[in-house]
Amino acid sequence: MKLNERGLLIVLSGPSGVGKGTVRKALFDMEDHDLTYSVSMTTRPMREGEVDGVDYYFVSKEDFEKRISENGFLEYEQFFGNYYGTPRDKVEQQLDLGHEVVLEIEVQGALKVRNQVKDAVFIFLVPPSKKALKDRLISRGTEDDKTIDTRLAKAEKEFQLAHKYDYIVVNDDIYNAADRILAIIRAEHAKTERSIYKYKSIIEGDL
Amino acid sequence: MKLNERGLLIVLSGPSGVGKGTVRKALFDMEDHDLTYSVSMTTRPMREGEVDGVDYYFVSKEDFEKRISENGFLEYEQFFGNYYGTPRDKVEQQLDLGHEVVLEIEVQGALKVRNQVKDAVFIFLVPPSKKALKDRLISRGTEDDKTIDTRLAKAEKEFQLAHKYDYIVVNDDIYNAADRILAIIRAEHAKTERSIYKYKSIIEGDL
Repeated sequence: MKLNERGLLIVLSGPSGVGKGTVRKALFDMEDHDLTYSVSMTTRPMREGEVDGVDYYFVSKEDFEKRISENGFLEYEQFFGNYYGTPRDKVEQQLDLGHEVVLEIEVQGALKVRNQVKDAVFIFLVPPSKKALKDRLISRGTEDDKTIDTRLAKAEKEFQLAHKYDYIVVNDDIYNAADRILAIIRAEHAKTERSIYKYKSIIEGDL
Repeated sequence: MKLNERGLLIVLSGPSGVGKGTVRKALFDMEDHDLTYSVSMTTRPMREGEVDGVDYYFVSKEDFEKRISENGFLEYEQFFGNYYGTPRDKVEQQLDLGHEVVLEIEVQGALKVRNQVKDAVFIFLVPPSKKALKDRLISRGTEDDKTIDTRLAKAEKEFQLAHKYDYIVVNDDIYNAADRILAIIRAEHAKTERSIYKYKSIIEGDL
């Protein structure tokens, strides 16, 4: 991709347990792309082994709330007293450099981004079946029955929002899913409203 | 692709001399697709070596005009006293069977199809530069200066209609161009409005 072409903001979402993280990793492992992952910002304390600016941008509660008041997040949420958000300036910087930025976020957060970035591309991952989703949540084995039930109930609600996305990609296989996402990125760049300016001199110039 | 999924009508067009035919051939040479070429119908006499139903469907003027009166064409035109058109029923049959149907047609004809098939995908091929287009028209060597000038003037007008297409694909290399078109086809199938019905049981079913 030429550097003077703006990157795309790709919002990768889907119900709890569908495998957003593994598909995102498979996507980044593929060749022929210029993808950047958006690093989130948080007020939770840094854990051992974590690196500021890699795992998260770690900031104080005051800094985070100042950014909120300045409309500095594409979306943010609070979990257990800590803030988590997607800093707008970091994303815009990467897009301006011509990199595609992938946001891998929860369904509700993704839809907040819709109102902030009109030309972002929204992809909803679905499991090959509901049974597959349930099996995956259970087989993680790290969660008790109550937690699994909570996540399943959350997934149920999240499925209802699929129609608000631009694309639906089935995660039958992480590499197939990643491949479909790359095709979507290529097609989005070829859309007339995104690409016509590149061909202006060809379209309007003299023969 | 599953046979119960309807195919896409892909309308491949672009200015005179851009290489629509060679890109279409490159596209059909690629693997991993289920593309069908729409055979046109004409009233011009069959030439030696031509096969009815392969090169064209050859019909009488009366038959052609009867079809016109029955709205039997996605588009048709008259050149030098002969009719040429895209028969609607043949295209619909292929789409219903789940094949993608590629129409490789002139810019004006393509835009007529827009009014007939709402969910068709319109791709405008552009040359890498206007000079490349001019060189290509000249290097064919089969046409005199006046014919070349006429074609260039036609191309000028056709460029002005690029913005009416869904996608713009640059024909810098026929295989790259074909590859971009395949990505567009894959992305179009993943569009929510086309694909959500396939996931209905997943989205609406019980966990």
